[in-house]
Amino acid sequence: MDRRSFLRTSTVGAGAAAATTLATPLVAQGTRTLTMVTSWPRGFAVLDDAASYFETMVREMSGGSLVIDKKAPGELVGAFEVFDAVSSGQADLYHSADYYFIGQHPGYAYFTAVPFGGTAQEVTNWYYHGGGEELHDELGSIFNLKGLLAGNSGSQSGGWFRNEITSADDFNGLKFRMPGLGGQVLTRMGASVQNIPGGELYQALSSGALDGLEWVGPMADERAGFQEVAKVYYTAGFHEPGSALAASVNLDVWNELSDQHKAIMRYASMATTHLQLSETLANNGAALARLQAQGVKTLQFSDDVWDAFGAASAEVMDENMGDELFAKIRASFEESLATSASWINKSDGYYVEQRVRVLGG
Amino acid sequence: MDRRSFLRTSTVGAGAAAATTLATPLVAQGTRTLTMVTSWPRGFAVLDDAASYFETMVREMSGGSLVIDKKAPGELVGAFEVFDAVSSGQADLYHSADYYFIGQHPGYAYFTAVPFGGTAQEVTNWYYHGGGEELHDELGSIFNLKGLLAGNSGSQSGGWFRNEITSADDFNGLKFRMPGLGGQVLTRMGASVQNIPGGELYQALSSGALDGLEWVGPMADERAGFQEVAKVYYTAGFHEPGSALAASVNLDVWNELSDQHKAIMRYASMATTHLQLSETLANNGAALARLQAQGVKTLQFSDDVWDAFGAASAEVMDENMGDELFAKIRASFEESLATSASWINKSDGYYVEQRVRVLGG
Repeated sequence: MDRRSFLRTSTVGAGAAAATTLATPLVAQGTRTLTMVTSWPRGFAVLDDAASYFETMVREMSGGSLVIDKKAPGELVGAFEVFDAVSSGQADLYHSADYYFIGQHPGYAYFTAVPFGGTAQEVTNWYYHGGGEELHDELGSIFNLKGLLAGNSGSQSGGWFRNEITSADDFNGLKFRMPGLGGQVLTRMGASVQNIPGGELYQALSSGALDGLEWVGPMADERAGFQEVAKVYYTAGFHEPGSALAASVNLDVWNELSDQHKAIMRYASMATTHLQLSETLANNGAALARLQAQGVKTLQFSDDVWDAFGAASAEVMDENMGDELFAKIRASFEESLATSASWINKSDGYYVEQRVRVLGG
Repeated sequence: MDRRSFLRTSTVGAGAAAATTLATPLVAQGTRTLTMVTSWPRGFAVLDDAASYFETMVREMSGGSLVIDKKAPGELVGAFEVFDAVSSGQADLYHSADYYFIGQHPGYAYFTAVPFGGTAQEVTNWYYHGGGEELHDELGSIFNLKGLLAGNSGSQSGGWFRNEITSADDFNGLKFRMPGLGGQVLTRMGASVQNIPGGELYQALSSGALDGLEWVGPMADERAGFQEVAKVYYTAGFHEPGSALAASVNLDVWNELSDQHKAIMRYASMATTHLQLSETLANNGAALARLQAQGVKTLQFSDDVWDAFGAASAEVMDENMGDELFAKIRASFEESLATSASWINKSDGYYVEQRVRVLGG
């Protein structure tokens, strides 16, 4: 497979054309195609939606001069192999969730979500205006990647269980799917935690290989069909309060793009988050009502269980502090989160509280 | 002033070039310049920031083939004359807040903010996934406008006062600035409400022409300098829980744009909201702390005052229900808001409550 050297050749061609732009007919620019490997089966709500919006926006805004060829898991590499594929240059960019790659570096957790971390808005505040994007690039430079965030799931559900969780002890021995640092927290609470790609979760839950799982939220979970095999659903979770999706690009490929194409990629990634997150949050309420109509019982974890999540999360976060870059990312994130939250609680938070009190609902 | 006929001529030129794209050198496409009149003085935080991001994104993503010439109030028309200027074709697009134009049609309130309405996220959910954008265009077709939302202030502060508000009666006779339907609510509560452009507010408050005002939030309000002339600041307000900014385009100008330029404008408007809103929310906390350090007292209105806001708001909303399109927009908005809020309260809302309880802050 020598796609990369082919792409490099066509890139050089485009660069040469740009240098003589004034005398060059448009057709000489041709079309640059980027191969995007993803961790999402085609049609998977929320996640593949974000990847598709990004693909569409880049194509339309470039007038077809920059095209993304989106690949589902297995078409080029597996769901969790996308990072190495892009890092090595086998593919041009990936669309995934960076916390799948905490094995490569624990700091990647912050570019999806961390336990007791930020909501989607708080993560966005940090990424663009609190140093997050620069830290994503600093981390990416180790792996030859330019980081972009394109999509966000919103606050993720606590997950699907066969039985109610009445105390933190119920996690002891539970075979549960949860990626990222959240999974390490449940491990510490005694669960047998596995990370399984989204496309294989329904089967794992049906077969009993898993006792429970968390995936995304009502809109995505309903499409995946988990309500057919589990009936207890916790709506809020500690583990992913606003999970960003990443569309990170091989750094050599990125550096060869024209300034115009770089601008299109970067702003398309922002517009993708805006359009997909709002779609998810516009649809979760109705999806939850449909799940309830199918006999799903919706609950919140008790304060005691939340306290246990909190204690185990603090230990897991501290465990990674030996890594200097992890510590730097954590400090940056927590400083931004404290400032963001201090205002949001006094404005949006207080407003919504009063709206509920005055109008009901 | 015959700018429009000049622009139309240059548009026809670009159209002709596009028709023979394959044989036409890039330079023949030239640059299309759109005149954007705004309601914001240059450098006004949050508002002019959004207009500037939009201008930059369009220029960079089009490779300079579509350029926005941004005009502050007074450079072409006044702050509140931008709607008529674009509707009539005197300018190509405006960047403003559509609730300034409830005199043209009361339905425009919904494309900025309404009393007890949606947060920025809830407004975005409705606009792109609950029928809002289509209704913006239906309303716009009356005035020859294509609607785009580009920017959002987040939840706006209750405002600046010389003295504390101890009961709803304190609004009686108060000379206060508040635009939109929120202003009608305060009028009903006995205030003498004026709508004054942002650039003139500092002077009006200093001179005593106003007893108080609301502008945007800590970041924008600090830049405007209100803390120099009033010392009581309410952080949450009923009137604008997530005010969208509009970048609406003359419909003839819009229809003449290429599909690529239309895509760039539309996705740039989404990216603008994403980038500017997060900047505002990342900075409000620190700005509030600086205001407090300058002797500003920050408060919340009491439940009694919120109840009075609620009662007067319900009356004002109902007053406009004689207009069929207003009623249609209101029904669409309220249906979307109910669905959005039903989920968000169970996920983000409950999560933040637990985060505050478990971690403090």
